[in-house]
Amino acid sequence: MLFPDLPALAAPDLAARVQHALDHKTKPLGALGRIEALALQLALIQGVERPRLIDPQLVVFAADHGLSRQGVSAYPREVTPQMVANMLAGGAAVSVLARQQGLALTIADCGVDAPLAPGAVDLRIAAGTADASLGPAMTPDQAQQALRQGSALVDRLPGNALLLGEMGIGNTSSASLLMQRLTGLPLVDCVGRGTGLDDAGLAHKLAVLGQALQRHAQAQTPEAVAAALGGFEIVTMAGSVIAAAAQRRVVVVDGFITTAAVALAEALRPGVLAACVFAHRSAEGPHARWLQQLGVRPLLDLDLRLGEGSGAALAWPLLTAACALLADMASFESAGVSNRG
Amino acid sequence: MLFPDLPALAAPDLAARVQHALDHKTKPLGALGRIEALALQLALIQGVERPRLIDPQLVVFAADHGLSRQGVSAYPREVTPQMVANMLAGGAAVSVLARQQGLALTIADCGVDAPLAPGAVDLRIAAGTADASLGPAMTPDQAQQALRQGSALVDRLPGNALLLGEMGIGNTSSASLLMQRLTGLPLVDCVGRGTGLDDAGLAHKLAVLGQALQRHAQAQTPEAVAAALGGFEIVTMAGSVIAAAAQRRVVVVDGFITTAAVALAEALRPGVLAACVFAHRSAEGPHARWLQQLGVRPLLDLDLRLGEGSGAALAWPLLTAACALLADMASFESAGVSNRG
Repeated sequence: MLFPDLPALAAPDLAARVQHALDHKTKPLGALGRIEALALQLALIQGVERPRLIDPQLVVFAADHGLSRQGVSAYPREVTPQMVANMLAGGAAVSVLARQQGLALTIADCGVDAPLAPGAVDLRIAAGTADASLGPAMTPDQAQQALRQGSALVDRLPGNALLLGEMGIGNTSSASLLMQRLTGLPLVDCVGRGTGLDDAGLAHKLAVLGQALQRHAQAQTPEAVAAALGGFEIVTMAGSVIAAAAQRRVVVVDGFITTAAVALAEALRPGVLAACVFAHRSAEGPHARWLQQLGVRPLLDLDLRLGEGSGAALAWPLLTAACALLADMASFESAGVSNRG
Repeated sequence: MLFPDLPALAAPDLAARVQHALDHKTKPLGALGRIEALALQLALIQGVERPRLIDPQLVVFAADHGLSRQGVSAYPREVTPQMVANMLAGGAAVSVLARQQGLALTIADCGVDAPLAPGAVDLRIAAGTADASLGPAMTPDQAQQALRQGSALVDRLPGNALLLGEMGIGNTSSASLLMQRLTGLPLVDCVGRGTGLDDAGLAHKLAVLGQALQRHAQAQTPEAVAAALGGFEIVTMAGSVIAAAAQRRVVVVDGFITTAAVALAEALRPGVLAACVFAHRSAEGPHARWLQQLGVRPLLDLDLRLGEGSGAALAWPLLTAACALLADMASFESAGVSNRG
């Protein structure tokens, strides 16, 4: 597909103006630490001096994976539709957190291996990807369809912030494959225990994923990598990330899987990373390494490894706080407070 | 003063029951990481399986310091009443954050060197402490008065959560002195740049504080240390912390100064630490070391060094999220989700 253009760079003096405003707030210089950097990033994403966050949307991209038939997950494949139903019924962690934080929650079925759940958005491509250790996870056409559908979904959503979530038994495997191919790091540095594999399970996962990488050695362009190693939910999410960045929406990245989608989006359309706020460093082993490789620093470090968008939802109040502080704190002048000598 | 008794330990099986509930929520075991530990701590503080946070109170304890006449701060002494006025007018960081998070904000004047600001609570002991480098910061009677007033303040506040904040030019100096005396660490490990001292300012601060410690070498009991090295706001806060812990309130600790108050409270009434949730690791140098020495791990690490209670307010949504997840997430059984094989 033709990707939309990203917004022009912010006016060259916008960063300086926002920094000036932050520096004249009634606090020691830089005393709000990373919250100040966050406020500046939000201003640059929106291209305004006073960023505002409106009608935030948390989207859970859900799909099944052919790889899950190879025993790469601690949980059985049927958990994907069961958890989708749980999210829609309000009982999942992401449901509780979205409700609490005032985040609109959308469950996008990108290819769950079960009938469409009532209340889910139909972005289904097939009933799960094919097994990437035996052949391509999806056809090139399916990958393009996923990207288009992800983009179109964002067009239909209100507001100016997109929080990324995901559900799909086996999707840490797909994310690990994408990490290896996109970063070039050794596979062993790209694989973790997912939802809780033991040592034998981890060794098996490594073997299966090594086989998949070998089979798709020729897949090197971002499009080819996406189709070969896939994950309908990950590729759809990448399409959403590109559209959101093009529309100056703030993208809040959750854990390992959503980082895979963002890294894929960045490979497809360099520059989207600037629109991304990384919510947390996951306890899923390779996530910290990938964040480092992307040159980004997440807000939270709470040993989370749930996915669903739970970390994005937990970090959300820091974004709204950053905007409020930039908008509403007094300056030394306006408050009549003496600045340092 | 006679300190109130702390609550009896929770029923021995309460922790096990809460852990069982957490382990049966629809998520991989432990996947909510430190949010699960936080939910458990809140349950144990309140002594119930489903903790609830009601009518949270953020109290900023403000006072001036004799030491600030020695040039130990980057800001002039008159900033204390100016910032108190700014907080009351709604323009300080803590005002903005309290409003945003739904925290009731109280400014307690424990001894600011200016007339009582309209809207502040009068807990004034004197117009600032005496200079601890020349003599005791306060008399033993004043220290007792501060502890009593801090305790009585909590009795008057509604709700079951107390978030600690502070304001007082020079109060990192008082906190550093308390840290040295309470931990026994070398003074140099207890002193930071406060609101932004340069190298010469830091060297001067170290010299002044070294002199104060030498002068009060005989002050060793917690009561004597409090009076000698003082800080009306810090000692008052310690009284509040003891009362809050005795009443099973959750205490949310902000940065370096509030940690000093909590450490002093723990020295006066061992056990209060169990009621304390540490909000963040401050960028004020010695704070990380003190947290380590206390054996606690803070929730956030955002290079904050503002004080005021700003870090406590920023961490607050994590506490409400922990309660909501424990109360509202479905279990595998109730949601019909397959658990791992």
